[in-house]
Amino acid sequence: MASLDTVLAKIDGNLDSAIARLLEFVAIPSVSTDPAFKSECARAADWVAKELTGLGFEASVRPTQGHPMVVGHAKAARPDVPHVLFYGHYDVQPADPLNLWTSPPFEPRVIDTPTGKQITGRGTADDKGQLMTFIEACRAFHETGGLPCHVTVMLEGEEETGSPSLPAFIAANKGELRADLALVCDTLMWDRVTPAITVMLRGLYLEEVVIKGASRDLHSGMFGGPAVNPIHVLAKIIADLRGEDGAIALPGFYDDVAELPEDIAEQWHGLRFDGAKFLGDAGLSVPAGEQDRSVLEMLWSRPTCDVNGIWGGYTDQGSKTVLPAQASAKFSFRLVANQNPEAIQKSFRAFVRERLPADCKAEFIPHGASPAIALPFTSEALDRASRALQAEWGKQAVLAGCGGSIPIAGSFKTDLKMDTLMVGFSLEDDCIHSPNEKYELTSFHKGARSWARILIALSQ
Amino acid sequence: MASLDTVLAKIDGNLDSAIARLLEFVAIPSVSTDPAFKSECARAADWVAKELTGLGFEASVRPTQGHPMVVGHAKAARPDVPHVLFYGHYDVQPADPLNLWTSPPFEPRVIDTPTGKQITGRGTADDKGQLMTFIEACRAFHETGGLPCHVTVMLEGEEETGSPSLPAFIAANKGELRADLALVCDTLMWDRVTPAITVMLRGLYLEEVVIKGASRDLHSGMFGGPAVNPIHVLAKIIADLRGEDGAIALPGFYDDVAELPEDIAEQWHGLRFDGAKFLGDAGLSVPAGEQDRSVLEMLWSRPTCDVNGIWGGYTDQGSKTVLPAQASAKFSFRLVANQNPEAIQKSFRAFVRERLPADCKAEFIPHGASPAIALPFTSEALDRASRALQAEWGKQAVLAGCGGSIPIAGSFKTDLKMDTLMVGFSLEDDCIHSPNEKYELTSFHKGARSWARILIALSQ
Repeated sequence: MASLDTVLAKIDGNLDSAIARLLEFVAIPSVSTDPAFKSECARAADWVAKELTGLGFEASVRPTQGHPMVVGHAKAARPDVPHVLFYGHYDVQPADPLNLWTSPPFEPRVIDTPTGKQITGRGTADDKGQLMTFIEACRAFHETGGLPCHVTVMLEGEEETGSPSLPAFIAANKGELRADLALVCDTLMWDRVTPAITVMLRGLYLEEVVIKGASRDLHSGMFGGPAVNPIHVLAKIIADLRGEDGAIALPGFYDDVAELPEDIAEQWHGLRFDGAKFLGDAGLSVPAGEQDRSVLEMLWSRPTCDVNGIWGGYTDQGSKTVLPAQASAKFSFRLVANQNPEAIQKSFRAFVRERLPADCKAEFIPHGASPAIALPFTSEALDRASRALQAEWGKQAVLAGCGGSIPIAGSFKTDLKMDTLMVGFSLEDDCIHSPNEKYELTSFHKGARSWARILIALSQ
Repeated sequence: MASLDTVLAKIDGNLDSAIARLLEFVAIPSVSTDPAFKSECARAADWVAKELTGLGFEASVRPTQGHPMVVGHAKAARPDVPHVLFYGHYDVQPADPLNLWTSPPFEPRVIDTPTGKQITGRGTADDKGQLMTFIEACRAFHETGGLPCHVTVMLEGEEETGSPSLPAFIAANKGELRADLALVCDTLMWDRVTPAITVMLRGLYLEEVVIKGASRDLHSGMFGGPAVNPIHVLAKIIADLRGEDGAIALPGFYDDVAELPEDIAEQWHGLRFDGAKFLGDAGLSVPAGEQDRSVLEMLWSRPTCDVNGIWGGYTDQGSKTVLPAQASAKFSFRLVANQNPEAIQKSFRAFVRERLPADCKAEFIPHGASPAIALPFTSEALDRASRALQAEWGKQAVLAGCGGSIPIAGSFKTDLKMDTLMVGFSLEDDCIHSPNEKYELTSFHKGARSWARILIALSQ
């Protein structure tokens, strides 16, 4: 096996071609939630499977009920080394609203900015650029004498829609997927210069609600007054969900939410997180959630609920005096450790039903649920990874929480009995899920170098 | 001038060709609110102007800031007769949701039903079929010796969008448009066999509200909790607008609302309006509005407010965990006599602004406003029309209210100093503004006969 320096030099030398590969990958609009992009998801799966094959992986595209899974296996040069399972996802969020992008979301490019080069496009940060940091590290090993660990790569195409096919796939392929440790690259750095290992992730429960009233759309003049309006009913439900204090008013919602251990609370306090700057980057200034919590707590260790979309009646230009027959909203609940998604779902559905007036009914369309993840704050693998990150970035890695959800880590623990190490190189201002998503060239380049260091550290 | 019987026989003989003309007219998708249909609106105006020209009218299509106005003048055979101004509108509501139509909205047809023949299609009842009853009556007079009254016809193309160009057009053409009496055919029968003259119409104030929060769409995991969600803000405003008792909670909303005079309340009570059946036809059973009012009061003499449309965030299939930068809703207020639309607008905008949390702002897009109309319950013209309707239908005409709004009647009184007679032949189940709009052949045929009788009655 080549020396660390040789591998790092190879990554440096490959950088231009690595960027070209990422641009090609991002140009495939693999939007998993929209059936119109089904074939593009398949194309992205094929593309990345071919990449793995080129690096000596025994790789295949595996069908599921939804978008396919990509799985690849490669042996290390030496047999007596650990086996890691790397997880990433090749699907991306929808790009709308398109008019807010300054360059087309699926025509990625490298641009110069005052803070350095950036790669623009939907999926550059979430998660194509991130997963390619790992694959580019594998490439450097492949080209300099082989991998330091046995590596299995599993890339899914439904992460952005709640991973509906993943549990069954893992259950059906336990023997093939089990490893000593799972690696995930779908999280943030602490800031532009400080790496982070994420040890707490919020869970997610997604539910679409349709409120139905009259048997048809009505004329609001002819019926306005005595006829129930499903938009009003839905608005009341949404309004009732949040108390004046910013807390979620769902019965039992906070029952299983534990207070943060004192030492962790202290550690977070020591990070001197600038809540005002965080909100300021999004054009906001005043925290809107639970009024007795810090912004970092709200994001990392407190649950919440947001309506991600709402629609009903006439939504085009001008006016139409319609009293619509139905109205819909997509709800997402962010959950923390110990909250049970099934219990929350039950409580939420009852909450909605209790607020249905005469003549209204509710339909529920679940879009997936997963509990929160809380990993140990110390372990052998975590310590090795932490030292590797410090060597690359020159600063100690923060043990961080994350407001988002990566359900896979829970599944790895429960179904495959292995721990997960979550290391990512995305930045807070990468505009994940928003227009003008980007990934810093520094994240991409030093991310690959970080993985090379981590793989070697784990193998020793 | 020919006898009434001759004219009625001519209407009967023309019925098949009259139906063919109406089908041709309805096939033009003159949707006024959607800019995509601008040329179709112009086509509908040209079509009906040509019809009028063919009946001896001096007709022209007159440009406005929006869709054109059609105006035609025809003299009676005798000079010393009254001059009437007939008003109708050639524009129609959007046809969406298209998937609920059993036959295409702009491919009208005559179908057989257990209760008789119907003409299906968007605009058959509102208002193309209705306005054609008057034009077919004019045709019969034209073909049998001439009109009994001097007739001016004014047909607008923006009724469904709040008539933005109408006030300026009337102001600029007062001399040309002033007549002894205005006739409007855009209202309902009392029931299938009982004619009605409408003497109360609710007013309308339309306002679109956009709530803006963050400077861009955010990831609900990364920002959910501390970041304000404009959908929640909008939902709270909508929820707050309605009290537990079903009344509108806008300050001052009911200040100028008078109680119904006792004699009129008694007359309405005597109509034995079946609120349960009325709601039942729309798949509803329990009145949702002001709990201390009858359904007929709610519709005819009480104001209300409905959200006609709402949208924000991700509204396509599946899920997207976005925390949107803005959310919008279209509000319509139905007003009754003495309520001032400007005062209501002021109160509503203040109501919205008072509910804006930090970091949120509201944009208002007005879509028009007009006060309610209350006409005298007795007059010479009304009595003559009433007798003419009784002769055609064999039942006394009901003096009715109407939940909808026809702003033109107020403008006729204020600007042209003339009263309006509102007679229409549409039925409650005609699905106005809904999928599967239709107009009964009986309404169309006996409607034309009714106008022939009314014009002769007014001329004597």
